[in-house]
Amino acid sequence: MAGTQRYIRYILIAFLCLIIVYFISSTSDPRDQLQSATDYIKSHSGSLTAHRDDEDEAPLPGLDDERPPIPLETGARTLPSALEDTDTTPNKPNELPPAVASGERMNATFVTLARNSDVWEIAESIRQVEDRFNRKYNYDWVFLNDNEFDEQFKRVTTALVSGKTKYGTIPKDHWSYPEWIDQDKAAKVRDEMREKKVIYGDSVSYRHMCRYESGFFFRHPLMLDYEWYWRVEPSIKLFCDINYDTFKFMAENKKKYSFVISLYEYVETIPTLWDSTKRWMEKHPDQVAEGNSMKFVSDDGGKTYNHCHFWSNFEIGNLNWLRGQAYMDYFDQLDKDGGFFYERWGDAPVHSVAAALMLKKEEIHFFNDISYYHVPFTHCPTGDDFRMDHKCHCNPSENFDWNGYSCTKRFFEVNDMELPKGWQQEQH
Amino acid sequence: MAGTQRYIRYILIAFLCLIIVYFISSTSDPRDQLQSATDYIKSHSGSLTAHRDDEDEAPLPGLDDERPPIPLETGARTLPSALEDTDTTPNKPNELPPAVASGERMNATFVTLARNSDVWEIAESIRQVEDRFNRKYNYDWVFLNDNEFDEQFKRVTTALVSGKTKYGTIPKDHWSYPEWIDQDKAAKVRDEMREKKVIYGDSVSYRHMCRYESGFFFRHPLMLDYEWYWRVEPSIKLFCDINYDTFKFMAENKKKYSFVISLYEYVETIPTLWDSTKRWMEKHPDQVAEGNSMKFVSDDGGKTYNHCHFWSNFEIGNLNWLRGQAYMDYFDQLDKDGGFFYERWGDAPVHSVAAALMLKKEEIHFFNDISYYHVPFTHCPTGDDFRMDHKCHCNPSENFDWNGYSCTKRFFEVNDMELPKGWQQEQH
Repeated sequence: MAGTQRYIRYILIAFLCLIIVYFISSTSDPRDQLQSATDYIKSHSGSLTAHRDDEDEAPLPGLDDERPPIPLETGARTLPSALEDTDTTPNKPNELPPAVASGERMNATFVTLARNSDVWEIAESIRQVEDRFNRKYNYDWVFLNDNEFDEQFKRVTTALVSGKTKYGTIPKDHWSYPEWIDQDKAAKVRDEMREKKVIYGDSVSYRHMCRYESGFFFRHPLMLDYEWYWRVEPSIKLFCDINYDTFKFMAENKKKYSFVISLYEYVETIPTLWDSTKRWMEKHPDQVAEGNSMKFVSDDGGKTYNHCHFWSNFEIGNLNWLRGQAYMDYFDQLDKDGGFFYERWGDAPVHSVAAALMLKKEEIHFFNDISYYHVPFTHCPTGDDFRMDHKCHCNPSENFDWNGYSCTKRFFEVNDMELPKGWQQEQH
Repeated sequence: MAGTQRYIRYILIAFLCLIIVYFISSTSDPRDQLQSATDYIKSHSGSLTAHRDDEDEAPLPGLDDERPPIPLETGARTLPSALEDTDTTPNKPNELPPAVASGERMNATFVTLARNSDVWEIAESIRQVEDRFNRKYNYDWVFLNDNEFDEQFKRVTTALVSGKTKYGTIPKDHWSYPEWIDQDKAAKVRDEMREKKVIYGDSVSYRHMCRYESGFFFRHPLMLDYEWYWRVEPSIKLFCDINYDTFKFMAENKKKYSFVISLYEYVETIPTLWDSTKRWMEKHPDQVAEGNSMKFVSDDGGKTYNHCHFWSNFEIGNLNWLRGQAYMDYFDQLDKDGGFFYERWGDAPVHSVAAALMLKKEEIHFFNDISYYHVPFTHCPTGDDFRMDHKCHCNPSENFDWNGYSCTKRFFEVNDMELPKGWQQEQH
């Protein structure tokens, strides 16, 4: 009797211990973490649903081993029985959550100015950015248009962007002639430029676009939420994997502006840009930074402009700098002088001159490891080892960096940077 | 005394239970699986090392939160202290292991026939395949060339492919005139085709390539290891995510051949291909399958060929079928008749006619969900929902499927498949 009681007690205690241990282990079940990561990822993806409308002619295989859980998952190997239903298509979107970097995100967004008709070219660019970078980071993407975006544009872009997508219309007064502009004079200029075959010289909308990118995009209500931006245009290419947070890099290294390609501007588009710049410098000498990159934009201490500029179709930069007093004063000077319409000032030289004069040298960054193409130029980083290490698939013979028409060598000199080994062989 | 003994016994039993439970749970520690998955991935990547040769002008940030472990990892959140060394570059290749599908792999490989000069175009194609599919599956890639591959080709492709890369040279006797070919007659044909401007009609190497793809690629020693292949050419594009194992799909659904684009062949390149085909049919009636796709290739029960074929620059197929008696007998007939040289027989009609006659209808698969571009045609799946669900970025107005020059509608009819909703709006 006592013996039986004892065994019963032992069994009960053992059972109790098992329950306690099970309880302890199940509260730190990695599956909880797994679930919340999946939710996190899903909440950042567009909503996707699977269809089975294409595979009618064949019965689907049993899907036990078809469903591909990530090997890094813990214990999640048994399928919910609903998924063994042979009605489901083998192509299940989002079944493989991407490897998303942990750690905090910067207050940053991609930004694209586009027309509805650009949708497929934008889609290509989004794919490039997502595949090489953003699928790991899920940053937002702001789209701006002087017209309203249509449903197709929003649908396609939202499906492809791994962060939140936002769509903004540009206010009319940011895309029209200021009241002080003499529109007849502006029309004459367009006629002259058409004769001289100045690229985009006959276009009104191109000028509104340049003015918008120069003075307004960073002030759009949708952009006010952010501190950092990465500008993306249609039909661009990225050739190397980018495995770090470029926005965080900028922040931690106190950069305000960056580029991948630099070149000389067509002087016919900016004959008096430097005169306006000098007027601003005289009015606001305090806004001209000590230790700036004057030598990048002028070979004579500031008397004349050498036309070097950063190619603005790629920019990762700080919005607060653009929204700051110095840049706004500069833009106001340019806007009043009217060169956006009386000439054809591009936002690239405008941003570049501003960055070169208002920022310290070390606040401008050359993203050598972001290999980039925008018609017609390519930045393909110099050095075979570098390219292999970064899984670059660009053709080095297309690298524009050391071409006589590029200003990148000058940038290296101004910043006392050593030219990369092998650059002489890549002077294309 | 008895009471104390009892408590001691209870404690010992509880302790024993804890030990047993711990032992049971630790043998199935997911971290073991984690480690082996990481090893698996590493063993399939090219060897990559990080360099710090570009970021000399700024101190690097502390990297604690920079290093991005996947949130799905269990417990692996503390960095090895070596990585907090500020000498390391923020761009650390392979720090984010891709989400790789678990489950077994099929005995399959990608295969590409290429010249050394094709390296950058191949690199583009590899990127497409990797980004949309293979980074999740890490299948091998065989490269074949009638010349030796140079170091650059091997280096670039190995860096980009997530599986093992293999390089094979084509034996001379698979890329030369068989001894029974009248080379003067062949030269005359090339002259005539040059006059008539038949595309590639004046090319010797093109014909060797077609003959190689028709009769030999699947017999290359490097290919003998595999059962399945996916053919990839330079400068292709894939527009939709592919989230399942296409090789496994083929195997489990008993498919032997597949396509994405079909079209009519130029009759000037294949005037007597069908006559050779009929000769083979008469010699080997047993090799002609019952319930085959005769209706896809002939509108009169086999008297004449309607020139419909599958576009072979994309194929996912079974190598054993190609290496089988029926296909080899067919190829031998064609090779003896000499049309590869006396005409300009492409491997596309050759593969297609063989598949249409030797395989049952249901053994040929149309990969609607693999959206594909090879100059100058695109397969962009019909249906807005379908495209959004599969994250496709192709322009639907470029879909060739329902173009009058495509044979895909015929394929649907032959297989009693319902045409996808909205196809009429996509007849471009």
